[in-house]
Amino acid sequence: MTRIATLYEPIREELAAVEETLAAVGKADPPWLAEMLSAVLFAGGKRMRPAVALLAGRFGDYRRELSVPLAAALELLHTASLVHDDIIDSAGTRRGRPTASSLFDNHAAVVLGDYIFAQAAVLVAQTGNAEVIRLFAQTMIIMAEAELAEDRVAFDYQQTTADYLRRIKGKTAALFAVAAQGGALVANASREQTEALRSYGENLGMAFQIVDDILDFSGDEQEMGKPVGSDLMQGTLTLPSLILIERHPDDNPVRALFEERNRPDLLAQAIAMVRESEIIEESYRMARDFGDRACAAVAPLSEGTARTALEGLTDYVLERRT
Amino acid sequence: MTRIATLYEPIREELAAVEETLAAVGKADPPWLAEMLSAVLFAGGKRMRPAVALLAGRFGDYRRELSVPLAAALELLHTASLVHDDIIDSAGTRRGRPTASSLFDNHAAVVLGDYIFAQAAVLVAQTGNAEVIRLFAQTMIIMAEAELAEDRVAFDYQQTTADYLRRIKGKTAALFAVAAQGGALVANASREQTEALRSYGENLGMAFQIVDDILDFSGDEQEMGKPVGSDLMQGTLTLPSLILIERHPDDNPVRALFEERNRPDLLAQAIAMVRESEIIEESYRMARDFGDRACAAVAPLSEGTARTALEGLTDYVLERRT
Repeated sequence: MTRIATLYEPIREELAAVEETLAAVGKADPPWLAEMLSAVLFAGGKRMRPAVALLAGRFGDYRRELSVPLAAALELLHTASLVHDDIIDSAGTRRGRPTASSLFDNHAAVVLGDYIFAQAAVLVAQTGNAEVIRLFAQTMIIMAEAELAEDRVAFDYQQTTADYLRRIKGKTAALFAVAAQGGALVANASREQTEALRSYGENLGMAFQIVDDILDFSGDEQEMGKPVGSDLMQGTLTLPSLILIERHPDDNPVRALFEERNRPDLLAQAIAMVRESEIIEESYRMARDFGDRACAAVAPLSEGTARTALEGLTDYVLERRT
Repeated sequence: MTRIATLYEPIREELAAVEETLAAVGKADPPWLAEMLSAVLFAGGKRMRPAVALLAGRFGDYRRELSVPLAAALELLHTASLVHDDIIDSAGTRRGRPTASSLFDNHAAVVLGDYIFAQAAVLVAQTGNAEVIRLFAQTMIIMAEAELAEDRVAFDYQQTTADYLRRIKGKTAALFAVAAQGGALVANASREQTEALRSYGENLGMAFQIVDDILDFSGDEQEMGKPVGSDLMQGTLTLPSLILIERHPDDNPVRALFEERNRPDLLAQAIAMVRESEIIEESYRMARDFGDRACAAVAPLSEGTARTALEGLTDYVLERRT
């Protein structure tokens, strides 16, 4: 089992600096704002996007005073999008803790997310790197577009695996990609290195999201701190359910679930069919493919602790249970 | 009566370029996204923030290729915050048209707002001006903070005029201030000119918001396209209601309205008390004070069509009926 602390060892000190930066953002005045921010900034995130950016920076002329603000900005962008996501999903919990939208009302959660987006923008501006600033804003566009696209097809039974892959590329992989690319850019890595790292980030992000979607079927509710099957319940088809529909076009309960909604019996049936078949295994195979592609992307880069950590992260993403 | 087209005459061509930029943002692919964007980008806004930025640029070394993207970014930031506002307020209409949140569901409106914020960030990055980029992000922080502060005191009867002025400075005046300041900065105006224009923008914004809040009491529902008294109904104290409470601490209906809510009779009573007193006049006096300060701020700047237009805008803001 890959422990994340071990992987983070080469960037331990900088990650601590990222935490300090986030703590400074969280220490807002007035106190009620600091309290709202704390609830979402220190909710046990694994800081994977910052870690990817910091590790990517190691392949160039590492400049901590640029990498750390960038890394913190990536975590803030991620956090802000989770806060806004929670409004969308009306999920009761995330990472086992109450979500912003259940802690605060809808309006407050929207504006709190905006506040955090803006803090991310301030930090990314600190890099003084025009390309990174532009990429950051464009990534936010891509993420929003993918979220809107996902909304549109909620409870739509007519979707393919290709649609799904396109969606998660925008929703999740784009931010991992810009983390790696941005980390390389602020370190003045070469064009080849930067492109290799961008590709690493994108493929890692694909693997990450697929595993996330698998765990929504196979995970342990206690460990994950959220109910199993929440995607299907909210009308979102992910890889396991898409494979289920493909394999059992005529005898799967998803169509009926989407038509009638609020049918926990049909949801339970769908979850059982996925769990008891080879669908989980097949989905993991696909996630592993992306993990392999991530490793292949960085294979030409110089060996060392940074590359080992990036490779290790692909294992971690595949092995994680929460 | 000051006609806005006349005021905009010196920047007519650039405002057309701003419209083209906004149209390009609105022409998103896929078509369903373009449709969502059109509904909010071309809803009849007066483009005052772009106009202020373009006019401010006239006092320096005017560079259209920087001023136009900045001006468009300001309008997008404003639009995005309106889209997110509408979620908050659950208002049925804005500017007489359906709001984003009533056209789309809550989730879609949140993410659509994020998308527009990000497009604003892309455009402001095009200026390549680090200070403007930083100011833009910080303004978003200030606006979000003020919005959150307003939420917190909803239905709170214990507020002062000073609280109100602080709130609208963040909620509205900050964006007008950065419009003028940013317009000056991208034109390399002198430090004195830039500060004068920033002060102009801030004071214009204060006047603008006070008039907005007056119209919520005194306005014509037909002309405005939204019900009178919506602020009070939503628990927001603005200048007219604060003066009412000050003048009639023991016999005003606001305390009871805030305690019992959903009491249209008490709301109607409060509106009548404001309309039939000198409160409207007194509020306008305060707005005019800010307008005067805006004019005083630009008085030292060189005379000409740009300054005349800026001065005319303060009259326009005070005279507008919608």
